[in-house]
Formats: sequence, structure tokens, C-alpha cells
Amino acid sequence: MASVKLIESTEEAYQYPLLIKQLLLSSERYGGDREIVGGNNGKRYSYTEFNQRVRQLANVLTAAGVKQGDTVAVLDWDTPRYLECFFAIPMLGAVLHTVNVRLAPEQIVYTMNHAKDDLVLVHDDFLPLMAQVKDQLETVHGFIQLSDEEKPQEAPLEVIGEYEQLMINADVHHEFPDFDENAVATTFYTTGTTGNPKGVFFTHRQLVLHTLALSATTSMNTQMQLLQSESVYMPITPMFHVHAWGVPYVATMLGLKQVYPGRYDPPQLLKLFVTEKVTFSHCVPTILQMVLSSEKAKDIDFSGWQVLLGGSAATEGLVKAAKERGIDAYTGYGLSETCPLLCTTWLQDDFANQSGDEQVKTRTRTGVPVPLVDMGILDSKGQFLPHDGEAMGEVVVRTPWLTQGYLHEPDKSKELWQNGWLHTGDVGTIDGNHVLQIRDRIKDVIKTGGEWVSSLDLENLISQHPAVDLSAVVGLPDAEWDERPHVMVTLKNGGDLSLDDIRDHLQPFIDKGMIAKWAVPDSVTVVDEIPRTSVGKIDKKVIREQLKKD
Amino acid sequence: MASVKLIESTEEAYQYPLLIKQLLLSSERYGGDREIVGGNNGKRYSYTEFNQRVRQLANVLTAAGVKQGDTVAVLDWDTPRYLECFFAIPMLGAVLHTVNVRLAPEQIVYTMNHAKDDLVLVHDDFLPLMAQVKDQLETVHGFIQLSDEEKPQEAPLEVIGEYEQLMINADVHHEFPDFDENAVATTFYTTGTTGNPKGVFFTHRQLVLHTLALSATTSMNTQMQLLQSESVYMPITPMFHVHAWGVPYVATMLGLKQVYPGRYDPPQLLKLFVTEKVTFSHCVPTILQMVLSSEKAKDIDFSGWQVLLGGSAATEGLVKAAKERGIDAYTGYGLSETCPLLCTTWLQDDFANQSGDEQVKTRTRTGVPVPLVDMGILDSKGQFLPHDGEAMGEVVVRTPWLTQGYLHEPDKSKELWQNGWLHTGDVGTIDGNHVLQIRDRIKDVIKTGGEWVSSLDLENLISQHPAVDLSAVVGLPDAEWDERPHVMVTLKNGGDLSLDDIRDHLQPFIDKGMIAKWAVPDSVTVVDEIPRTSVGKIDKKVIREQLKKD
Repeated sequence: MASVKLIESTEEAYQYPLLIKQLLLSSERYGGDREIVGGNNGKRYSYTEFNQRVRQLANVLTAAGVKQGDTVAVLDWDTPRYLECFFAIPMLGAVLHTVNVRLAPEQIVYTMNHAKDDLVLVHDDFLPLMAQVKDQLETVHGFIQLSDEEKPQEAPLEVIGEYEQLMINADVHHEFPDFDENAVATTFYTTGTTGNPKGVFFTHRQLVLHTLALSATTSMNTQMQLLQSESVYMPITPMFHVHAWGVPYVATMLGLKQVYPGRYDPPQLLKLFVTEKVTFSHCVPTILQMVLSSEKAKDIDFSGWQVLLGGSAATEGLVKAAKERGIDAYTGYGLSETCPLLCTTWLQDDFANQSGDEQVKTRTRTGVPVPLVDMGILDSKGQFLPHDGEAMGEVVVRTPWLTQGYLHEPDKSKELWQNGWLHTGDVGTIDGNHVLQIRDRIKDVIKTGGEWVSSLDLENLISQHPAVDLSAVVGLPDAEWDERPHVMVTLKNGGDLSLDDIRDHLQPFIDKGMIAKWAVPDSVTVVDEIPRTSVGKIDKKVIREQLKKD
Repeated sequence: MASVKLIESTEEAYQYPLLIKQLLLSSERYGGDREIVGGNNGKRYSYTEFNQRVRQLANVLTAAGVKQGDTVAVLDWDTPRYLECFFAIPMLGAVLHTVNVRLAPEQIVYTMNHAKDDLVLVHDDFLPLMAQVKDQLETVHGFIQLSDEEKPQEAPLEVIGEYEQLMINADVHHEFPDFDENAVATTFYTTGTTGNPKGVFFTHRQLVLHTLALSATTSMNTQMQLLQSESVYMPITPMFHVHAWGVPYVATMLGLKQVYPGRYDPPQLLKLFVTEKVTFSHCVPTILQMVLSSEKAKDIDFSGWQVLLGGSAATEGLVKAAKERGIDAYTGYGLSETCPLLCTTWLQDDFANQSGDEQVKTRTRTGVPVPLVDMGILDSKGQFLPHDGEAMGEVVVRTPWLTQGYLHEPDKSKELWQNGWLHTGDVGTIDGNHVLQIRDRIKDVIKTGGEWVSSLDLENLISQHPAVDLSAVVGLPDAEWDERPHVMVTLKNGGDLSLDDIRDHLQPFIDKGMIAKWAVPDSVTVVDEIPRTSVGKIDKKVIREQLKKD
């Protein structure tokens, strides 16, 4: 077979690798007079200063012994300083480990050892923790203190110095090298309900491509211009969580005004929103809920604030409540494993003509895959299913910015990647307008008679029964059908609820074609309390174990 | 020395190559009900139809014998059909040769032989030419006729068939393969004033990256949103000219409404502008001039039309005249060798507060480098010059979408690429706001006493002398100063003009600091006619030769 024609190049022709340092090229050119604002200490930097500080930080880190291939951990709130780390650390050829500061201390230690961190940049708030676990950190050879105070407190463990004090004396010149675009740039850990956190990792090439594709989707929609040159960006998703969804890289490439709030305290967020005239943020739905219901929010005019919701499904109620306050909320979808962007809400030309309720639905659906994302849904046999809004299958993706595996976990990596597709573990439908709707997690979906039933769909319907307080549906092993749905409920006023009550309640939904007849649960358990995980999610693993014992 | 940490991946982990086929993934998803309109035959295609036709064309081409690594030439006007070729040909792993149909027949033959074209897709208008030169085409083994008629005329040479007729019977299924992202996707020829045309070539990777970066710069500026989801795009730069600046790839990736005008006939362009509600076009300044001065343009409301000007410098007069008609004109800069995008006008937040004259200047300047473009200006010793708006040097660039050389011309490639930078052959200044201003071609700039003097700057000033009709300034060899400026003039009313007249005329500009004292020409020649090239440009090579003989 013939082969493609490859590049014919001269000795001097330069294969320009895709490196994070190139995202900085346009930052100062496009940035003009715009600033990067630190809510942590009130400091403000022009893009010229920011670029200079990235070079200074590189010199500080080099002096602290950081070499290519090293891993530098950061434990910080959201600050301009963290943004400097987003650039300087990978630009040195080192790996940035964004430590999840909300993990339990033993998990933080686990991730820092597993990632083989060499140097640690740590905020005052986490210095006591570091002092406490210092002896358990196997590879760390030094700490740099991150302080928001003009006169930093004395650190409770030996540090190389405080960030700003080290910066003062650092040379403003630094030439960043070129290297392989497949060099790992960042790593961080994703937590499941069981087992140790798993490390994902992204390369320079992947982050540059993610930045470019994210910038297309956030700027190109006439009715939904999330990021434009005069937008003001404030993240409300921690920077340790998938690089704050990668938006800081986009905002910096385009020289936008950026506001980093420090800790996520609603009064602080609201104050910055007002004084800095923020136009775009992203967060998990609960944070938006918390901000809206804060006492201080009552007198604030939120009109013109665009908020991308992700991390978990937004409810129509929240999106509607936000709109009533002037906030345009949209949905984004992705995983830690996917850098994260896969889908966002995409407004078609007819959006403006939709009714208010339809608009809320459009904003709440999981969304449309962004450019360069190839996406399909697979049935249990690994066959691609039609995009008809009915067929439900596991969401699989290909795109150039997916983690190539879990760090040092080849077995788990093989589950993640199968036949050239990353398996998300999410189950969804894709409709004729190319809109993905996540319906369940694959481990929770009920596989019965060769069909899949969404446990979440059943829970939503059963929860509408007037006597039901909370419901949880799981699949139980069945000799004939593989699995059959079982529902566990708590009731509002005690008493009892029979299977027939549930069947009668579900019949109208069957008649309307909203669920299949065989999706009706075979059994019901009334309990006083439904098992939950440490973060408050329904724990279906425990439910299945409890029911197995019964 | 330590090295960077490279990807650790499982066997199954998939390195997703950057391929043109991926630009199509979002076209249908984002495109909704929008259409691709053919001004050549009035046909309109949805994005679903367009995607299907790309697959059908792949089957037509495969049946015609096209294999990976082959080169397929296209001679066509701007049509949806050509856009189908932009995708289907490279997606097969073949190389698309966009033939410049405005070249002389012998040059067309030269480029087709030099590129080793295998199959030729040729519009009715160029069939007679192909019939005439058929025997001189060394590698071509077949022709496909491109006709705009319902019932195509009989071709004057043997053809495999007519495009639409072949499409009717083509299967709508085609699985495009993955291959190396460094596979060559396109090639075309750039013409200089002397010698044979030179071939440049671009890979899948380069075109994908160019598309992403172009989309950022055309959509992200709050005051200058050239391309948004509801924009309507009509190119007025031929598709054979650097892929119509790459905009068709952006427009397709984003599913925009696109209008392909066929031949560039002003009444046809104006009709389509009005009926299709075009919002964005790009063209060379003379085309915009021609459109504006067309008789039919008088009654047209042009407000809302955004036009990116490039190819040669736009004058302030044209930009101002356009604005008076409601057209927002901006400047783009690039070369055939650079895919082409390097710079565009970039409006800072204060643009709205600028005076009308300042705004015209901002729109007319060469522009600001787009994301991922690294740019510098070099003096004659190859040293980087400051970006102060004063220092003038050769513009050199690095960015991931530059031709890696001239096809089969290693010596010329070595001139193009030096020390890892592509040398543009243009001379310019970069000011403190990062705005590039092209001042001359390097072969025309006058190198005197270690300094560079722009021949264009001198011509602009000398042309303001009331007696001067046209002027051309060239550098003549000088033992002491290396070169010294010499001016050749034609006069409005005959008569004579002395060197002292020119010195007196230039003195006020020297006093104002607009030119240096040593930039004043040493000699003047009054002539009846200044030598020009075949396309009407001042021919400085001939002038230098004439003056050498004198």
C-alpha cells in the first residue's frame, strides 16, 4: 500500500513544538492595559509584569534546584501566584503537581509520594500540615512558603524562603528551552469512592490544543460569548481541579483581565464580582447555589454574569433561578481524565425564539462536543449506538487532550482506554441535534435483558410519589435477566410503601413512553436512612452490599 | 543533563493525530440549519449534505485511482465543490494542489509537472487549456470535468466524467483512515518577479493548528468579531491563493453559513452580498476598491460588512472610504510561505475612544502577531532589534504552520529558513504596543552606513513634491557607505527636477524627525517612464540594472 507524503525539509527547517510557553506570546500583545488581580492580597499585575514574574519564578525555582523532569507540587488557593506556577513550572520542563488541598492528610501524602514530588510550594494555611507529615514525604527535598501577608509568619518547618521575598531578588531574564511537546506538563489526582486517588497527566501539546479548542467554543457563539477580549474572568473552580478547567490558559493567551479570588468565601467572591466587574466564571452547581443564597447576594445586580456549570449535573431549578437574577448559566462536561473539556451548551440560531422553559432545558443539557472531539456511545457489546436521543450507551471519546493513562497504574489505564477510545464511565444519549445527555454512571445503570435502564431516571420519577422522601435504585443480580431494578426509599411521614404503589405511580410514565414497562422495579425496601458517602452522595455500592445480605 | 518527563502510556492509549478530518467533526454539530451556498450554480447544501458529499467525493476519487501519497490538482473558481476538495483530497492521504489559474499556460504546466500531479479536476473554463497542454503534463493520468451547467458541455479532452454526475452514483459511506499528522495535505506555488514559481506545502498538523489560531483571532476581539456562529462568510480571495487564507477551514469547523461566489465579478459579488446577507469577507485592497467603485455599489447599504484586507498594504484612503460606506476594514498579514496568517489588526479597549483618523491608522497598520506566533526583527548582522517603532529589520517568524521549505528546492529553502527562523523578506518596525508595520521588501531597502532606509518611505515623501508624478528609490553601490539612495522620477508637466529641489523638499521631514539626514538621496534621474513588471509593480531590479549601465 502506498503511504502518505511526509515532510520534505531542509536541515534548518524548524519543527516548532507545541509548548506552554507559546501561550504566553500573545498574552502581552493582546493584554494591553488589562490586569491580573489577586483577591488574596489585593495585588494587581499588568501582563508585562506577569510575564516578567514568570521568568523570575523560573529563576527562583532553578535556584531551588528544580531541573527538567522534576515534579513541583503546589498547595495554594486561587491566586495570580498559582497562575505563575501554571506557566513557569512546565516551561522549565518540570511537571506541575496541583495538589488537591481538600483531600484528607493521608491522601495528600499518598499523592505527593506517588507523584514523586521534589519541591513543594505551600500556602501558610497548609504549612502546619506539611510540618506534621514532613517525615512521610519520600522524595521532597525542599519547601517554599506562599504567604498573603506583607510580613509572612515564621514557617513551622524549614523553608527555602517565602515566594515574594525570593522573587524580589530574582533576575528578570530567563530563556526557556524548547523540548519535546510530549513532555508531561501537569499531573493531579482524581478521587473515586474507593481506593487510592489516581493520577492523571497532561503534556504540553495537550494543554496547548485544549487551550485553542476551549477558546473556540467559549468565544464563537453569537448568543453566548463567554470569553471575549473585554471579558473579565474569575474562576470559582479550584486551580488544583483540572487546571480550573483550563480556562486560565485561555484567559492568559488572550490577555484578558483575570481575577483570582483566593479562598472561595461567598462574601469575598461577591465583593470581587462587583468591584472587578466580573463577566465570566465557572463552578460546580452547588457553589452557584451557595453564592445566590448568600445574604449579601440580595442587593447585587448579577446581570451580564455568564457562568459555566460543570462537575455535576445542574438542575433546571438552579438555571432558572440564576436567570431570574440576570445570570446566564450554561453547562460544560468533562472529566479529570479529559483535561477536562468535552462538551458545552451550544446555542443555535433559534435559541432566542425558544420559550423560557425550553431555554432552561437547552442550558441544562450536558451539551454538544467541542471542536476536535470525536464522541460515541457504546452498548454493552462495544457496538456504536445511533444518535437518536433514545439509545443509551457508555460515552467514549477521542480527542488530542486526553490523559494517556493513570500514573503508574497500567491495569487501571487499560480499563480507561479500550480500542483506541477513552471510556468515560458515564452513560448517556445523543440526540439528533448532537446534544449529549448524561443519564447515569455505568456502574449504576441497570443492565436488564440486554437493555440499559438509568437508575437516575427511575429515581427522578419515583421521587415524585407524594409519600417518598428520597429514593435510590440499584440493579440486583437476576438469573434470567442478568439484573433487575430494586428501589430503596425513605418516606416523608413514616408508614409503608408497597411495590404496587410504585407500579401504580409509574404507570402513567410508561403510558407516556417515558420509561419502558420492564424498567419498573421488582422489589422495594423502605428504610430510615439511605447510605451515603463521606461527601454526601448516595452510596450505591453499600446499598448493593446491604441488599445482597438481606 | 536531566531530560523532560515523557508520556507513560498503555499499549491501548491512543495518540490522536491532528488531521483535517477532525475539523469536520464539529461542522455538522455546530452548523444546525446553516448552508453552504454556491454562487456558481445556485446550489445550497446543509452541513449534513456537505459531510455526505465529502465522503462521496472520496469514493469518486478512489474510483479514479487516487491513492495515499498521490497529488490531485484542482483548477476551479471558488465553489462549494472546491471546499469539498479542501477536505476529501487530504483526508484520503493525498495532496491537494490548488493550481493558480491566473498563471501563464507555461507556468501552469511547470507547476503541475513540478508537483507531480496525478489526477486533475478542471473547470469547463480551463478545459481548452488542458486539452492544449495535455501532452506536456508528465505525470497526469486522468481528468475530471467540473461544470456549473445542469447539462455539461462535451469536454475537449478525454475525461473520467463530470463531477456532479460522478457524485450521483457514489456511495455515501467512506471511512477515512488515520495517518501521520505530518503528512503533506496541500501544495501550491508562489510567484516571484523572476524565475519559476516556487512550491510551498502544508501538513495536516499545520492546517489544523492554523485553523485553531485563526479562529481565536477572528472571534475573540470584543470590538471586532469577524467570525461568530451567526456570521455569513464569503471569500473574495481565490481558494487557490493560500487556501483562501485558511478561512474556509475555520468557517467549516464552526459550521458557519458560507457563500462561494464562483468567479470574482463585482455585480455577482454584490448580488450575493445582498441576498445572502454576507457579514465577513477578505480580499486584496484592489478588489475592495473595485467593488466600492462599481456602478451597482451606489445603492447598496454596506453597513455591518467586515473585510479583512491583505496581500498588499491597504491605504488609509481606502479604509476611510470603506468606513464611510459602513464597511469595517481591517488588515491581515502573511505570506504564501506562512499558511498565511501571522498578524491582524487587534483593537484594544480604547479603540472606541480614538478619533476617526486614529481609528483609520489602527485599521491600516500591518497588525499584531496572532497567538502562537513568535516574531522578531533582525538587523543586517542577524541580531534582534528592539520593538520601539524605530528600529527597522527583517521580519522573522516561528510558529507551527510555516512551510518547511520550497518543494524540491533545497537551496532556496536554506535561504528561507535560517537559524530556526523563517525569513519573510519583509522589512518592518514593531512598536511598543507590539504592532508590526511593514516598511519595505528587504531586497529594496537601502543599506547605508550600517543603517536601513525604507525605499517606500522615501518614495511616499518624494511623491508629495508638487512636480513629481511617480518616484522609485533604489540603493546604488557605494564604496564608503555600502549603498546610497538614488531616486528615479517622472514629472507631471515635464521639465526638470534637481537634487537640490528634492533636498529642499525633504528638509521639513528631516526637521520633524520623520527621516534621517543621511536618508536623503545622493542622485536623481528624471525619466519618461519608470520600469514596471508584467503585473504593474515598479520593477526595481530593472531600475538598478539601468542605473548601473549609466
